[in-house]
Amino acid sequence: MSVTNRLIYLPLGGAGEIGMNCYVYGYGPEGKERLIVVDLGVTFPDMDSSPGVDLIMADIAWLEARVDRIEAIFITHAHEDHIGALGLLWPKLKKKVYARRFTAIVGRLKMDEAGLPLDALTTVEAWPAKVTAGPFEVGFVPVSHSIPESSALVIDTPAGRLFHSADFKIDRDPVVGEPWDDDLIRSIVAERPIKALMCDSTNVFSTHPGRSESTLKEPIRNLIKSRGGMVVATTFGSNVARLKTLAEAARAADRSICVLGRSMRRMLSASEEAGVLTNFPRTVSPEEALEIPRGNLMLLVTGSQGERRAASAQLSRGKYLGLEMKAGDLFLFSSKTIPGNERDVLKIMNAFSEMDVDVVDDGGGLYHVSGHANRPDLEHVHRLLLPDMLIPMHGEHRHLREHVRIANEAGIAAEVATNGMMMDLTGDEPQVAEYIETGRLYLDGTAMIGALDGVVRDRIRMALNGHVMVTVILDEQDEPLGDAWVEVSGLAPLGRGERPLAETLEADLTEFLETVGPKVLRDDDKLDEALRRLVRQTSVEEIGKKPEVTVVISRLQAE
Amino acid sequence: MSVTNRLIYLPLGGAGEIGMNCYVYGYGPEGKERLIVVDLGVTFPDMDSSPGVDLIMADIAWLEARVDRIEAIFITHAHEDHIGALGLLWPKLKKKVYARRFTAIVGRLKMDEAGLPLDALTTVEAWPAKVTAGPFEVGFVPVSHSIPESSALVIDTPAGRLFHSADFKIDRDPVVGEPWDDDLIRSIVAERPIKALMCDSTNVFSTHPGRSESTLKEPIRNLIKSRGGMVVATTFGSNVARLKTLAEAARAADRSICVLGRSMRRMLSASEEAGVLTNFPRTVSPEEALEIPRGNLMLLVTGSQGERRAASAQLSRGKYLGLEMKAGDLFLFSSKTIPGNERDVLKIMNAFSEMDVDVVDDGGGLYHVSGHANRPDLEHVHRLLLPDMLIPMHGEHRHLREHVRIANEAGIAAEVATNGMMMDLTGDEPQVAEYIETGRLYLDGTAMIGALDGVVRDRIRMALNGHVMVTVILDEQDEPLGDAWVEVSGLAPLGRGERPLAETLEADLTEFLETVGPKVLRDDDKLDEALRRLVRQTSVEEIGKKPEVTVVISRLQAE
Repeated sequence: MSVTNRLIYLPLGGAGEIGMNCYVYGYGPEGKERLIVVDLGVTFPDMDSSPGVDLIMADIAWLEARVDRIEAIFITHAHEDHIGALGLLWPKLKKKVYARRFTAIVGRLKMDEAGLPLDALTTVEAWPAKVTAGPFEVGFVPVSHSIPESSALVIDTPAGRLFHSADFKIDRDPVVGEPWDDDLIRSIVAERPIKALMCDSTNVFSTHPGRSESTLKEPIRNLIKSRGGMVVATTFGSNVARLKTLAEAARAADRSICVLGRSMRRMLSASEEAGVLTNFPRTVSPEEALEIPRGNLMLLVTGSQGERRAASAQLSRGKYLGLEMKAGDLFLFSSKTIPGNERDVLKIMNAFSEMDVDVVDDGGGLYHVSGHANRPDLEHVHRLLLPDMLIPMHGEHRHLREHVRIANEAGIAAEVATNGMMMDLTGDEPQVAEYIETGRLYLDGTAMIGALDGVVRDRIRMALNGHVMVTVILDEQDEPLGDAWVEVSGLAPLGRGERPLAETLEADLTEFLETVGPKVLRDDDKLDEALRRLVRQTSVEEIGKKPEVTVVISRLQAE
Repeated sequence: MSVTNRLIYLPLGGAGEIGMNCYVYGYGPEGKERLIVVDLGVTFPDMDSSPGVDLIMADIAWLEARVDRIEAIFITHAHEDHIGALGLLWPKLKKKVYARRFTAIVGRLKMDEAGLPLDALTTVEAWPAKVTAGPFEVGFVPVSHSIPESSALVIDTPAGRLFHSADFKIDRDPVVGEPWDDDLIRSIVAERPIKALMCDSTNVFSTHPGRSESTLKEPIRNLIKSRGGMVVATTFGSNVARLKTLAEAARAADRSICVLGRSMRRMLSASEEAGVLTNFPRTVSPEEALEIPRGNLMLLVTGSQGERRAASAQLSRGKYLGLEMKAGDLFLFSSKTIPGNERDVLKIMNAFSEMDVDVVDDGGGLYHVSGHANRPDLEHVHRLLLPDMLIPMHGEHRHLREHVRIANEAGIAAEVATNGMMMDLTGDEPQVAEYIETGRLYLDGTAMIGALDGVVRDRIRMALNGHVMVTVILDEQDEPLGDAWVEVSGLAPLGRGERPLAETLEADLTEFLETVGPKVLRDDDKLDEALRRLVRQTSVEEIGKKPEVTVVISRLQAE
């Protein structure tokens, strides 16, 4: 009797959002598929939806419950949204991790920080090398992106060859790392046709062809040459090619280079260690930089997204490691602002404006290019790969939907599959196999909490509504002992008639306690509810707000 | 003996930010200048810096302390950032308010809602009519903008003629309201030269000439004609010209129009009442709309900035007044997203994408034009007005600085003056006269609080760090009565070893209380401090976070 095997694809993160990428492929009998995991990324919190949270990652409960079916973990590249959760989620899976050299170096740093075994990571060579993992054979195909050694995965299965694009752009002269290579892709397709393409969708709405990293050399060089004072440039720390372009432009303008920000220095040294970055100009330390005339100095700094603790933000507030911006200096954002970070970036721009520092941003593309394939480039890749089917990933819903639309226009079967939608790729078209419950995990301090645990909801409520704490002491006869005590946090101190809100609340609560019957006084739940309601009612009358309320009822016991 | 009079300009809001406009002009002996106020606007809160706040406005304490010197208040136009604080701040000033007809109608609605006298507002005619207010003569000069009857102010003083641009663009065919009129401006300058121009700076970084509202007619008409399903469009409710363009395009496509959202309906009826809007197509009620085939229906809705309670967001979550979006419908953002609102707008776009609704945004200018003058238009206005000096307003610092730069390039004396910088305009160049302490007031529920009162700071801290409440009861001998009680809000429920955090905290606190000496137990401050420190220390160990802590110490007294 023959068993029917199926080929499945399941995004747990990254599909229907940009961030926290985590994808699963499976092959085998239904419910018994052998699994591989592609990427363990993070996304970043914001005050609106996740105040106080440190990092956000996919809830991988589904994988944890099937850990014995997992063959291996593959990391496509070293961007945080693909590798950032390695040190946090690996302990839940404890499987072998495969990555190329640069990515593996970054991965080992993360494992090391988390006190995890470094040998969990295995460095693999690029295509045509292959890793066997159960029914899968996986090869890392070099693609150009905004970080060294980004790799698409060719995933061979008994049911056909899959192409997981990872993050890529078409760049034939990427300054650092391997160029995009049409012939390589063609040879892969010629060897075995592509059953399904899982494809980056980030830039599907950009209708012009993408531009090469190398087109920035001239404009950046000219900009830096034209300046007299100190020049400071920020970009993503992992964009090693950009750092090289900036550093070489600085050298051409007789400037020494100082790199500020730990993540950027780590990326530079990881690139050098991996051998992907050579001939990076010599840098000076912040102490040495202080001795160099401003006109001969260029700082490369972290914080292109306005992160409050990064070097850019620190320089916008004053000195950082002794260095500071002055009138006539230039600050270059060689970067794009990710939606949601505008306010933080503008804050920095305005702070520099107050210092009479000239700020230049991407200049409509003069000083920054994206690391993702634009629509015409995606269409080019569709034509190169000629997949039977396409499933867009790495995008918000609107990106995925648009990517499906252009694939369909080109005659390719395509479906939107968001986080938790398990797709059956066995047939000629992708089919929804099942809906898996997915979600988000928060790293909060050192604790891991679920996004829906209520912890963050409580924080948001306190932030919106303020917090009132009520303390009531009852004696052995359930009679109030003394007055109710109220502490107020995050609320207008004065109510109507300029009377302190806490006083008014205490008076109302004490009066209530004096008049309410023993039935309520004896019952913690009833008393709690009544006091809570009274606090809210009085607060609405006094200051027009319904606060969060915590009631502590202490009952003295006969000794 | 002659007294030296001086002419001053003092921005209290709107200079160094976009929002909460409030400007003061004064003329007279130093410290005794007679004053007029231009605009009383609001700005909007955000979760990052002002969670839970309802509205933000300029702190006008400086004006309150000099209320007897104020002659009058002038409102340039009915945008919330110019008139939104009228009902909230007028009671602190109680002076006559002058505005043109449409603005006055909107102003009276605000006064009415706040229970204030409607006759505080006086409707004035446009230039050449003038209002005398102490040493000032003020005329309202029609300018084109994105709301009817926006007006620049010509402010005549014994020291010279000022031109306060208010918000404007150069639009010679604005669809609704008065076109920009070079000849009118020239005649004003010919009558008396302009000593100082206080000028809108919002779009100083836009290097192409601005486009007329009327250029949208054709593209919007074509877009709506091309669609089969329901069409829904959002824009600012006050952009009456845009509403007219959208409504006329709907009629041309045989669609009935239904307006959803109170603020939009208010603006339409105010415009009709003021006589600035005529021939607006007949609209249907939501109930009537339900009976109309989707292909014959167009909804005009509020919420272009993603506001959670507005019609757009409600439709993205499901039904609104019985109406709902379906696959194949079109949702048009005939608007630009204001920086900081991206995340909310994208959320709506993605929700519509999930419904298979097509979303179209401004389309690179096809479906939206700005209401502010771009750089070439600003330069045109500089040339028309030929002011002796220019002070940029209505902009972040970077806008003001850039505006000064282009004015200086044109040979005009110019200075950046941010909120609180009192400028002396008496001489040939603007001089800083004094720095006034300014700030922001928050409407929070029904209470007014200062931005620096600590209320919102406490909310932000609770949102970032969580909140622990400790209750301790001490008997007449200052001995702990029972164990310490801990309530936790907004923190991971479990610490190390999966033990409940509250339990661990209670155990540590109780142990501390049992061992600490009477010197601490007797002293509320010392005990509070010690307990607070212990809670933070244990929390850091258990969950890696330092929470906000409230300690309530109850001491039983001998009866």
